[in-house]
Order: sequence, then C-alpha cells, then structure tokens
Amino acid sequence: MARIGVVLSGCGVYDGTEIHEAVLTLLAIDEAGHEAICLAPRGPQMHVVDHATGHVTGDARDIFAESARIARGAPRALDGVTADDLDALVFPGGFGAAKNLCDFAVRGAEATARPDVAALVRAMHAAKKPLGFACIAPALAAVIFRDAGVRGVRLTIGDDIGTASDLDAMGAHHLACPVREVRVDADHRVVTTPAYMLAKRITEVRDSTQAMIRHVIELL
Amino acid sequence: MARIGVVLSGCGVYDGTEIHEAVLTLLAIDEAGHEAICLAPRGPQMHVVDHATGHVTGDARDIFAESARIARGAPRALDGVTADDLDALVFPGGFGAAKNLCDFAVRGAEATARPDVAALVRAMHAAKKPLGFACIAPALAAVIFRDAGVRGVRLTIGDDIGTASDLDAMGAHHLACPVREVRVDADHRVVTTPAYMLAKRITEVRDSTQAMIRHVIELL
Repeated sequence: MARIGVVLSGCGVYDGTEIHEAVLTLLAIDEAGHEAICLAPRGPQMHVVDHATGHVTGDARDIFAESARIARGAPRALDGVTADDLDALVFPGGFGAAKNLCDFAVRGAEATARPDVAALVRAMHAAKKPLGFACIAPALAAVIFRDAGVRGVRLTIGDDIGTASDLDAMGAHHLACPVREVRVDADHRVVTTPAYMLAKRITEVRDSTQAMIRHVIELL
Repeated sequence: MARIGVVLSGCGVYDGTEIHEAVLTLLAIDEAGHEAICLAPRGPQMHVVDHATGHVTGDARDIFAESARIARGAPRALDGVTADDLDALVFPGGFGAAKNLCDFAVRGAEATARPDVAALVRAMHAAKKPLGFACIAPALAAVIFRDAGVRGVRLTIGDDIGTASDLDAMGAHHLACPVREVRVDADHRVVTTPAYMLAKRITEVRDSTQAMIRHVIELL
C-alpha cells in the first residue's frame, strides 16, 4: 500500500482547495487501495472569499484549520513531512494552490512558492517519486521547478492560453489536454490533469482525478 | 432528468455539512444522470469549530455562505423553494444537520427544526416525493415528522444505540443498517443510510450515498 500525500490549501475553490477535486482525489486513492495522507501548511490564507457572492471579506482564516474540514480532523503539518514519509505527492486545485501555496494568482510568471511546499516537492522530485497536480496546481509546479532550475517539464492546465503562456514563461512546456485525461512527463514523474479548469460537471472531475491517481500509481 | 435538491448546512463535519458525504451525493446524482440543486438556509451557524483541534472558536459564520463552498457558488435559498421545484430532496449529514437545520445535537429528542426546512420536508412528504437522509440527518427527519404528527417512519442512523433511542422517542422506528446499505420506508418514501455514522473509509461513504440516491430515484 503506497502512502500518497494530498496537499491541501484551505477549503473552498476561491480561497483554498477545490473541495470536489480534493474529495474525489481521496476517493480515487482509496478505490485504488492506497493510503491518502492529508498534508497542509500552517499560516494565514491570502484572504477569505464569500463563495456565495465572490467578494473578499475582511476575515482571516488559517490554511491548516480550514484544510482540516476536508481532512475531517487535523492534517499532518507539511513542514514535518519529508520525502521518506511518502511514496507520492499530489495537489488538488482551487485558488488555494495559487494563493496560499504560491502567489501565482496575483503575480503570474513572477510568482514565488512557500519554502516548505517547494522543499517537499523538490525532495520528492530528487527522490524520483511521482508528483500529481490537478486544475491550477500545475502553475505551482512550474514555479517550484523554475526556482529549482528544472526546465522543460511537460504540464497541462487544460487549454487556457493565458495560464499556459505563464507556465511556458517559467520554463515549463504546456500541453493542451481534454478534461478526462492527463499529461504524463515520465522523465520527471509528473502527472497533470485539467479537472475544474475545464470540467462542467462533477463526473468529469471524478474521471480527471481518477486518471491522475492511476497514472501517479503507475509511476511508483 | 429529475431535479434532486441537496440541502447543505455549512461546510465541515463538526459545524456544517459533512463534506465527503455532500460531494459524493452530488457525484451520485450526476452519475445517475439527474440534476442536483444545492439548497441552503440563510442565518448564523450554531457555532464554528476549528476542525484541526475540535474546539469551538468565537467566530461567526453564515450557513448559506459556507454552504456555497461545497456548491462552488451560491446555492438556492431554501426559503424560496417549494415542492413544485423539486422531484426529490436529500440531506447529507455532518453536525450541521443537527446544529443548524435543527438543534438535535444539543437537545436530543426535545429538538426543534428550522421552520423553513421543516416546511419544505413536510411539503415534499405531502406531495409523495421521495426524501433521503444520510448519517445524522435522519434525526432531523424524526424531529420534523414528530412535529407533523407522522409516526412510525422507519429510519436508520446505523447502530448507535443512544441516537436510535432518541429517534424512537420522537415516534420514528429505528432500524439497524450496515454502512453500505439503506433502509427504505416505501410508505413514506423515505430513504436513510448511515454514511459516516459507521463508515471508516471514504469508499464506504461512496457506496452509502450512491445507495441512497439509487433508492430515492426508484421512488420517483
């Protein structure tokens, strides 16, 4: 049974982890007979969004405490986890991946990533352990690989031209991809899938996250 | 294509809707080819729980705005919906069903339900449209049926003796049930399933909510 880390970044598509993607990723891991280990960093979210109106509120929320809503209890603190603790690491999407784990949502190709998140991704990559990124999370991958001096990693965020050009500007190589499929960079053991970057219905997200987990497992 | 209302009560097992149950209910509806319509009442949650520690915080959150995290945007306001708008109505669990939709979590068999929620359930029942309740939500059903003078409705919350005796005290008839199954009261068109009242893993919740939706559809 492989130990697959699932990195959460809050709870809700506009300021944290996209909930459907996270739950369906956890489901796909259990369906495949492997162990999901929810991880989250500590610290304040970039902001809080009222998901009914789309407006930023003045509230403050903690990434770790909000991620615990999806995990149904405390996740493991991300900065206490090493590549030895995991066989693979995956990132559901949601703006949390581009606001709380890095600041791609506001800085685009100039973004920087949280050091703890970047360190764990770099350690997994160095250990040749598979990585998965769904929805907007491949932008986080591009930021981390850029700063690690790793160029040409093949990634997809679906077909959004603006986001794709930002990924290419950071040294990644964007590939278009339909929602139910993945793109696999076997050299770097990186699997990416569009999920809600393209999905119009939840069954598409089920297929997208299932495909990501299946291909991550094939790279173990 | 049937219109199946899914009543949310916040976002998180300890103070709102249980997230996995809600997402897997939405998935089951889409997999069956029907339309899910997320509904939520407006108003403050009973309280807010830090899901990493289990402690009640001093914060205030709105049921509707938090439910929008699961719905990925504004749900329909529950008090604007009538039985004519829906073919079936289902309730995922989580403490929100027993804290925000009624106060069963603190008052047990003496609980009362929100008038808007009770009115919609009574209207659906009067129209002979199917109702589904997962996890702890059958306690809400028992409260509403007690106040409607409807006795002997057969319900399950799994096998928790204390909760089951509260349901019986309210005039319902509790039936034990394994996690992956449902209990169906065909006379009242009510389907119940234990979900996380018994589930140890997310695939069990998938099976539980799928079974609830399948049997609700059979009653259409």
